[in-house]
Amino acid sequence: MDRTITIGFLGCGNVGGGVWKLLSGFADDIAHRTGLRFSIKRVLVRSLAKRRDIDFPDGVLTDRAEDVLDDPEISIVLEFLGGEEPAHRWITMALERGKTVVTANKVAFALHWHELQKAAKQSGAGLYYEAAVCGAIPIIHTLEESLQANRISYIYGIVNGTTNYILTRMSREGAEYADVLADAQRLGLAEPDPASDVEGLDAAYKLSILASLAFHGRVPFENVYVEGITQVQAEDIRCGQELGYTLKLLAIAKRDGLHVETRVHPTFIRNDHPLANISGAFNAVFLHGHACGEMMFMGRGAGDLPTASAIVSDLVRAASAQKHLYPTFDNELHPAVSLQNNTDWRCAFYTRMLAKDEPGVLSRIAQTFADHGVSIAAMQQKGEQRDGRVTVVFITHQASERDMQKAILEIRPEVATVESLLRVE
Amino acid sequence: MDRTITIGFLGCGNVGGGVWKLLSGFADDIAHRTGLRFSIKRVLVRSLAKRRDIDFPDGVLTDRAEDVLDDPEISIVLEFLGGEEPAHRWITMALERGKTVVTANKVAFALHWHELQKAAKQSGAGLYYEAAVCGAIPIIHTLEESLQANRISYIYGIVNGTTNYILTRMSREGAEYADVLADAQRLGLAEPDPASDVEGLDAAYKLSILASLAFHGRVPFENVYVEGITQVQAEDIRCGQELGYTLKLLAIAKRDGLHVETRVHPTFIRNDHPLANISGAFNAVFLHGHACGEMMFMGRGAGDLPTASAIVSDLVRAASAQKHLYPTFDNELHPAVSLQNNTDWRCAFYTRMLAKDEPGVLSRIAQTFADHGVSIAAMQQKGEQRDGRVTVVFITHQASERDMQKAILEIRPEVATVESLLRVE
Repeated sequence: MDRTITIGFLGCGNVGGGVWKLLSGFADDIAHRTGLRFSIKRVLVRSLAKRRDIDFPDGVLTDRAEDVLDDPEISIVLEFLGGEEPAHRWITMALERGKTVVTANKVAFALHWHELQKAAKQSGAGLYYEAAVCGAIPIIHTLEESLQANRISYIYGIVNGTTNYILTRMSREGAEYADVLADAQRLGLAEPDPASDVEGLDAAYKLSILASLAFHGRVPFENVYVEGITQVQAEDIRCGQELGYTLKLLAIAKRDGLHVETRVHPTFIRNDHPLANISGAFNAVFLHGHACGEMMFMGRGAGDLPTASAIVSDLVRAASAQKHLYPTFDNELHPAVSLQNNTDWRCAFYTRMLAKDEPGVLSRIAQTFADHGVSIAAMQQKGEQRDGRVTVVFITHQASERDMQKAILEIRPEVATVESLLRVE
Repeated sequence: MDRTITIGFLGCGNVGGGVWKLLSGFADDIAHRTGLRFSIKRVLVRSLAKRRDIDFPDGVLTDRAEDVLDDPEISIVLEFLGGEEPAHRWITMALERGKTVVTANKVAFALHWHELQKAAKQSGAGLYYEAAVCGAIPIIHTLEESLQANRISYIYGIVNGTTNYILTRMSREGAEYADVLADAQRLGLAEPDPASDVEGLDAAYKLSILASLAFHGRVPFENVYVEGITQVQAEDIRCGQELGYTLKLLAIAKRDGLHVETRVHPTFIRNDHPLANISGAFNAVFLHGHACGEMMFMGRGAGDLPTASAIVSDLVRAASAQKHLYPTFDNELHPAVSLQNNTDWRCAFYTRMLAKDEPGVLSRIAQTFADHGVSIAAMQQKGEQRDGRVTVVFITHQASERDMQKAILEIRPEVATVESLLRVE
């Protein structure tokens, strides 16, 4: 005999609509596989008057949040509003009332996780957020339930589909950022206001969640270094390709003892790295654990049905749980072991310069690098002399971020102008 | 307060040793994260006299299976024997005694799953087998707990590390199969008797498990078409590379309505497919669900610690479960919807021939293909004429396996000899 769970939606845009479609169209299969049926009692929307694709039964739609939050029959609330407020406030209210919350909201979650988890624990409600990071990819669940016996040393993620789509097209077509962005907006693959995606914030929210779970310690969003793709030039992508590298917006978290570094920035990776083939709007997470070794998970990071796939799996998990579990964070239990934010990471660098075409110039640049402990792994002159200058590309060995920045600042314009500086992993 | 679970091992080779090391070396972290401690009371080994790396405490080792199976304190049995018997018999005995079993044994599992699950259900014991397929990759768990809301249409897997290692080296070095196999054996990366790996049986066991879970219906091992890599020639890998393809031993399962095809064979895939970059001893599973879209999971498919990572996650899951769950198979519940085994699948083909270097020969070959409904997508002549013959490579459009085989049989030796026939996905 199937058990019926009464649920409510906060919001019903793209993702909410996908969940509605999946729960209604696939209800018998879900019931057959899990013994559960989900009855959607109330759906909060901004405007009752708006025309919609979905034909909601009478009495389901409401524009009053309390119709969802205060209904004693609704035991699980699905939140699809996105953004910090009012989502954060309403999730808290639902949890305080003992309602389990399933959310796809990375912003409210990354910024208020601690407080939300506290509210959940206090009332015994569940808090599920698989869909907040990387859409359909079960990376949250994998970190929590399949890699418990691992000390994870790093995570590399392609966690934003919009920027991966733009970089993929720039790579394939040799096109410039602004042109591809405009086209992506026209195709509905980038938002009219793309700032959160292209400036790397979306990736940083997700990275703070992933790093916190992977390292079993809270890694605040504020600690994540963020650099987006708005300054990426087609010429650098091309130069990188010639050297065997692909450019990706990577979200990187590394742990060494109690030192954690978290950073989002355009990154060159080798063409034969599994992440290099993750194209278009796909997401992927590549990680290393001391027992499991290297792993990668790829899938659709956005879209109505892919996100709904993750939401429904959380819903089934929430409805089946005898007792809801919450992740433990070492730095909350033992303040003494609190993780330290390392902002002087080490990595290799790519830099392109316009150098004066004169004897001795290259050796002066190399000397400046050497003075700061940066050693050169490869150097290539590109194309012909123009206006007395030549394009020169350097790849360095691993160096400290600070040392590299200092070295770059010391390269004087009369020797060379630094056109770009990108990190290499 | 941590809860202590008393467990026993059946076997303690490579994987068992890895689990021992992980449970002892990482015990505090596991306890901290899960609230569980595992006490290994008895370990069954073949010979008590054998010298071992691990320093087992007195009284732990035994050469009598009943010391594990009949000990009422032992609530979870970990089986690491491998192979069909006596593993299958002992797993059954443990389940009948109400002991939960965690196993890495794909053979016993693929061949006797139905019966094992029945024994587990009868006593209420749990049956966990994440480690039986693809080592550290949580693919079983993902299929069971993250993709419930999906109708999965296909799975492509690189599920055998030995063959992937051999094919990767053949591709990179242009070396022949026998030479790379010998080297892999020398390096301990292939078994002294490599038959189960190189003939594709190992992959077929895993595919029957994956397909059964993905399609929610039993797909017997006997239904899997199996062709190994022993006949693969370096020349074909090279010709494929020139056309933009990489050769992999793929385990393929596809479902269309009630028709299921399952096959393991060397397969050309495009170089830009995410599976093409899965190199060396890595495993990967690529699948498509109607909601999640395309997903891929990559990781180490073998080795002591990677497999132990999956075993310990099962152990934690088993010890935390209030009630053990078992997958449901539609074709057991409703015999009317039983899945049908489709042996006449459709795919594209690659074939290399030595054709007579005469006018009209290519048109006769093309006509033979056309007579059987096979149409040609690409044709390339390779190299120079030799003994009146030239090498010609064809790539076909999708065609039925039977039609293609018939066409190949009809190509007469005086026109061309068929040197190789490989499938393309």
